[in-house]
Amino acid sequence: MAQVKNKQVILRDYVSGFPKETDMNIVESTITLKVPEGSNEPLGGYGVAKVLESGHPDYKKGDLIWGLTKWEEYSLVPSAQIHFKIEHTDVPLSYYTGILGMPGMTAYSGIFEVGSLKKGENVFVSAASGAVGQLVGQFSKLSGCYVVGSAGTKEKVDLLKNKFGFDGGFNYKEEPDLNEALKRHFPEGIDVYFENVGGKTLDAVLLNMRIHGRIPVCGMISQYNLSQPEGVTNLTSLIYKRIRMQGFVVADFYHLYPKFLEFVLPLIREGKIEYVEDIAEGLENGPAALVGLFSGRNVGKQVLVVARE
Amino acid sequence: MAQVKNKQVILRDYVSGFPKETDMNIVESTITLKVPEGSNEPLGGYGVAKVLESGHPDYKKGDLIWGLTKWEEYSLVPSAQIHFKIEHTDVPLSYYTGILGMPGMTAYSGIFEVGSLKKGENVFVSAASGAVGQLVGQFSKLSGCYVVGSAGTKEKVDLLKNKFGFDGGFNYKEEPDLNEALKRHFPEGIDVYFENVGGKTLDAVLLNMRIHGRIPVCGMISQYNLSQPEGVTNLTSLIYKRIRMQGFVVADFYHLYPKFLEFVLPLIREGKIEYVEDIAEGLENGPAALVGLFSGRNVGKQVLVVARE
Repeated sequence: MAQVKNKQVILRDYVSGFPKETDMNIVESTITLKVPEGSNEPLGGYGVAKVLESGHPDYKKGDLIWGLTKWEEYSLVPSAQIHFKIEHTDVPLSYYTGILGMPGMTAYSGIFEVGSLKKGENVFVSAASGAVGQLVGQFSKLSGCYVVGSAGTKEKVDLLKNKFGFDGGFNYKEEPDLNEALKRHFPEGIDVYFENVGGKTLDAVLLNMRIHGRIPVCGMISQYNLSQPEGVTNLTSLIYKRIRMQGFVVADFYHLYPKFLEFVLPLIREGKIEYVEDIAEGLENGPAALVGLFSGRNVGKQVLVVARE
Repeated sequence: MAQVKNKQVILRDYVSGFPKETDMNIVESTITLKVPEGSNEPLGGYGVAKVLESGHPDYKKGDLIWGLTKWEEYSLVPSAQIHFKIEHTDVPLSYYTGILGMPGMTAYSGIFEVGSLKKGENVFVSAASGAVGQLVGQFSKLSGCYVVGSAGTKEKVDLLKNKFGFDGGFNYKEEPDLNEALKRHFPEGIDVYFENVGGKTLDAVLLNMRIHGRIPVCGMISQYNLSQPEGVTNLTSLIYKRIRMQGFVVADFYHLYPKFLEFVLPLIREGKIEYVEDIAEGLENGPAALVGLFSGRNVGKQVLVVARE
């Protein structure tokens, strides 16, 4: 059985507040390519991998898969963490960490299944240039909706309008009054708010929702690293506006993956959808890339290349 | 056309904070029993009335109806405000302001339609001894669920357990830690929270919901009279627990009224459901009864008798 050197990213200790690069260590150990194996726990995340050795009858050497992998060069992946074998390789493999993987399925199930999007509705997306947000916006546009997104830099807002085809966008950091910004972009109110950020943005959105609006709650990234979350004060809007606010986890929708591929692969092949990735090269740059997510440094889906085929 | 003296309750001015008795005036005017008519606007509310004169072919003199009426002895009721003609008079007429009227329909549509209640689930109800809460709890018990309610006095909590058949109850004013109180009553968590109060109770509930839980939002009475609502800080629970939180308005469900009557009338006639009313006699006592709602002075559905048949 082959022994290989295996670089890994591990956490030094419990992280409080935003993660810093110094919270993480790059270590090198040796791994035997044999099931089972256990040592330090590196960080986890969604990745694309090639099977080198398998104990599962459905996966053989050379197969490509996507699913939960670890931040290391070689991983032991339990079968429960493999989501799907990769069947279509005429598209970039990195897409299986994004538009063709978990973020794509998140956008698709969140806006269509949880959000019950209908043609002609008004859609607002926060963190709109991110891995999920850019797809939510484009799926909504393809469904004949009016779409506006918020993001945290001018560059990102320009992307929304000029690359992803949003009808509008604004930089939430430059808006003194989010309620006013939403009223400007949605004089008739919002039917579906795809929630990625929580906090003050959610509070302003609640005041601008329309009757029978929906809020699929995908994330609340503005709140995760606060020791005391911001209070949301406008929840009484839920009542008179009959709003449905619903949290969801993509894992509940993976049974729709084949249907999703039928929907999205033609859009990619025909150039009807744009997908922007921010590629960091090499495991050594993983900690900096992760830290950048929380300050909004990345533009588009942050991908870390561990190895190329 | 008969002219009659007509006592009315009107507001002196815009009410800020909790209403006080001195915010309201009792006035006496004269009304001609003829359509149309207009003068001072008395307070509005759901009431039971007998038709004295009608311009609508479906309603004739002597018919009983329930719907939106005004706080006065004689009212002109536009046909759009009549919800239903009263067909069953073997039950107290006051029930059509409660269990057989808007609050009954609110409980029924909120817990079954919005809350998607299923047999064997764990249900928490706030304001549980009120017009809606007492019915939500009993409907849930009749559906084979475990039910706990909160209320603001020992007397009300006793009612929950001894009269309405709840499995448990607590006085939220005497619990130093609502999260701890909920953990005590729901060691395995809450499937459906019927939301009547908002604020701190909602925040504690969010920490105690189970995966795929539902929160039908009927009201947030703790928040209505605050100049600055309390912030709700635990909304990130919505995500990982896949919680559906949905505001609703009973008017959207009135098409289910015939089905509701088929469900609830036999329960009343067979004594399988308890319904507690707090009866105030005479329009003069209306302001005090209304004010009492906000301090929780009433026990059960607050009814004001304007006239007896």
